[in-house]
Amino acid sequence: MIKKSIIYDFNNVMNDRIKSPAGISLEEIESYRQKASEIHRTLTSKRKNGELAFYKLPYRKNEVKNVKKTGDSVKKDMGNNFENLLVIGIGGSSLGGIALIKSLTHQFYNLLPDTVRKTPRIFFVENIDPDEIKGLFDILDPEKTAVNIISKSGNTAEPMANFLLFQKFMVEKIGEENFKKQVIATTDSSKGTMRKIADDLGIKTLSISEGVGGRFSVLSAVGLFPAYLMGIDIDSLLEGAAYMDKLCKNEDIFKNPAYMNAVIHFHLHTRNGVNMAVVMPYSTALAEISVWYRQLLAESLGKKNSLSGEVVYAGQTPIKAVGAIDQHSQIQLYCEGPFDKIITILSVDTFKIFLNIPSLYESYEGASYLGGHTLNELFNAEKQATVLALVKSGRPNIEITLPEINPYTIGQLFYLYEVQTVFAGYLYNVNSLDQPGVEAGKNYAYGMLGRKGYENMKEEVDNFPEKDKRFIIS
Amino acid sequence: MIKKSIIYDFNNVMNDRIKSPAGISLEEIESYRQKASEIHRTLTSKRKNGELAFYKLPYRKNEVKNVKKTGDSVKKDMGNNFENLLVIGIGGSSLGGIALIKSLTHQFYNLLPDTVRKTPRIFFVENIDPDEIKGLFDILDPEKTAVNIISKSGNTAEPMANFLLFQKFMVEKIGEENFKKQVIATTDSSKGTMRKIADDLGIKTLSISEGVGGRFSVLSAVGLFPAYLMGIDIDSLLEGAAYMDKLCKNEDIFKNPAYMNAVIHFHLHTRNGVNMAVVMPYSTALAEISVWYRQLLAESLGKKNSLSGEVVYAGQTPIKAVGAIDQHSQIQLYCEGPFDKIITILSVDTFKIFLNIPSLYESYEGASYLGGHTLNELFNAEKQATVLALVKSGRPNIEITLPEINPYTIGQLFYLYEVQTVFAGYLYNVNSLDQPGVEAGKNYAYGMLGRKGYENMKEEVDNFPEKDKRFIIS
Repeated sequence: MIKKSIIYDFNNVMNDRIKSPAGISLEEIESYRQKASEIHRTLTSKRKNGELAFYKLPYRKNEVKNVKKTGDSVKKDMGNNFENLLVIGIGGSSLGGIALIKSLTHQFYNLLPDTVRKTPRIFFVENIDPDEIKGLFDILDPEKTAVNIISKSGNTAEPMANFLLFQKFMVEKIGEENFKKQVIATTDSSKGTMRKIADDLGIKTLSISEGVGGRFSVLSAVGLFPAYLMGIDIDSLLEGAAYMDKLCKNEDIFKNPAYMNAVIHFHLHTRNGVNMAVVMPYSTALAEISVWYRQLLAESLGKKNSLSGEVVYAGQTPIKAVGAIDQHSQIQLYCEGPFDKIITILSVDTFKIFLNIPSLYESYEGASYLGGHTLNELFNAEKQATVLALVKSGRPNIEITLPEINPYTIGQLFYLYEVQTVFAGYLYNVNSLDQPGVEAGKNYAYGMLGRKGYENMKEEVDNFPEKDKRFIIS
Repeated sequence: MIKKSIIYDFNNVMNDRIKSPAGISLEEIESYRQKASEIHRTLTSKRKNGELAFYKLPYRKNEVKNVKKTGDSVKKDMGNNFENLLVIGIGGSSLGGIALIKSLTHQFYNLLPDTVRKTPRIFFVENIDPDEIKGLFDILDPEKTAVNIISKSGNTAEPMANFLLFQKFMVEKIGEENFKKQVIATTDSSKGTMRKIADDLGIKTLSISEGVGGRFSVLSAVGLFPAYLMGIDIDSLLEGAAYMDKLCKNEDIFKNPAYMNAVIHFHLHTRNGVNMAVVMPYSTALAEISVWYRQLLAESLGKKNSLSGEVVYAGQTPIKAVGAIDQHSQIQLYCEGPFDKIITILSVDTFKIFLNIPSLYESYEGASYLGGHTLNELFNAEKQATVLALVKSGRPNIEITLPEINPYTIGQLFYLYEVQTVFAGYLYNVNSLDQPGVEAGKNYAYGMLGRKGYENMKEEVDNFPEKDKRFIIS
């Protein structure tokens, strides 16, 4: 495992280089120094007071010990029957785990023969799509399936509904006692519906660290537990995060990639109208990191009200793209459309394998130039070419390079983006830790389903004006 | 199969209803009537002249016959050994097929036991990620794998590289003669590198219909062939598209969902600064439709130059979201962030299955309200609740409802979006059929790889100014 720093390169947002209405100048960056120092002091002091608990996650020896102990006990209980790990969660309870595991396991892990796989197949169920849930029933043998339900409060409808469905599905086949042995709840340490259910059932539990919000929880038991069961080196993951923490303690934005990334994104957004932030990994394994980042950025910074109570409607929109695939889908727009995006190209220096492209059709020029190169060279050339095309068309872009994809570099990446996000919260002057805007929808749904205490929401739903039939076409 | 019309509902973009800076008024819509009629006449006349060949796809009896004949011959050749279908393509050669197959097959199809699956497992390989390709080598038995290489010209580097790699991988294990039996090329009918290779090898081929560009090709052999092999009723698919074609022949935008959708998106974009178009299906099966739509919209409308040669930097950015998952990721931003999005909620009236949520924890209010409802009701309530939350916060949204997910409704959806896109091209006054902006990147890559004729690109790459080390942090 190469334990090296990831490289954060912002050359291609500089006006001098990209000659664009969407860039930034050195002077403009410098002008953030004072503000950055202020925010740095605020963050440092909050951290000292025990707020912003995600800062502590790289260092929680006890949490890691618990995760491993619980994991080992699950492995022991499941024995040779451990074919599947089903993780039930949504949003902050699942996106981190998915990103972590997709980046650090075989790309077709669930399809590897049993003899090759050393750990169970893994399934994350997030949605409440009936056809999808039935699909899982079709392929999971309850006897061979461990369930990790992740829900801090137990109040979120989707994971609770899915948990109830899987409990019934499994108990019917294997009985209640076996079911209890095969379930692990990751939830609040003392309160909430899921904690009560877990205590009633007497099942294994892991606690979600106090003060760690869902979207900042990937380096807690939420992400660590499934990762450990999948054989991922979680110590190196946290070691990587701790390394990034060192960089992120720098007050100087020119030495702190998280602060610099926040400054650049904020400036381009608020001064240049760049309202989209694309994260485009050149790596299939890293694709889900963009999906995790989507939530982190959107929920943290997408806010109607500022901390001082003004209506601000803040928030850049995070977008997932994947290289080289999206060269054949989005690059046309990125290079020729409006100057409304900043694009982060995530790339990998060394893949696990080198593949030589064979020389098979030497007489056809459309194939022959590929022969003799490695697929790695082609992938890298396309990445570089895309960056240059973006630069040439004046599109601001950031390059983040991982020396290789491993727990140490993935740990760095998660941590970098988390620090960037809380720092950006102060630039935007919004609360990066709450999500008041998801309540309305939740409450309407509760009302429609007849949940106690939401009768007025039901009424509000019923009182929505009727649709105008002129505006419906079929 | 319910053969009913999908329902297009634009109530929630109307100013009167959403009371928002991002809506549209009836008068504003009416003001497009004349322009719409002009475009309609242009499209009709081009169609009559044989241009815009995608219009013909629902009616190509011969193409369907060929697809079935070739498919049957592959099935016969593979016999009981037909475990895997590997589709090699990228962009327009793969996104349609992926969307089609994910929407119409079991959600965990590749993991169903052999005894249940009636058709092969299917893999789409788009990227040139070495670890991913090696991953496929690990799980695919060459003897049991048919390969469908899709490339119109054969000039696209990614599918060609992957084809060369798989040819070598397979020939090594099963020999050249067997390999030839197991490969089908979907390519140009007479010219290009892939056609030449196919003719040299003497393998089965399917022709990509003349004049049909990649991103408009899902209803041609490109999408139909893998769909047929997967047991999808392609006749009903085209029948659905033909039904939508009838609607889309209406000059009156109030009777034409494709025209209306184009008008609304165009107006909100160009008049109200709504530069993002989200497509958010409440259905796991439909998630890939958004990914297909991303290419269709981005490449067709993301243009630097107008048809009259002005620099316009046009293009709304299409975004994929999935309900209910993204309620826990993006809805905070969609409801509270800037008024810069229009959101299409795609939903499904009737799923394949009803699942009853069991009443298991009656004493816990956080779980008890769910018991007795179906998962279908919960899913639907969340969808409705999200729509209402969007309306209440003044966010324009469109509802498209499928009576059920089946070939007939999916055919409608593809066709609707294709007509909308070419119509929108005329609203923006850009060429919706080309993609000049992807050339720069391609050419740089060719230069770096030493392809003949691209020496000057190599030179241009080498002459890019060096990076400034102050702007790199690690």
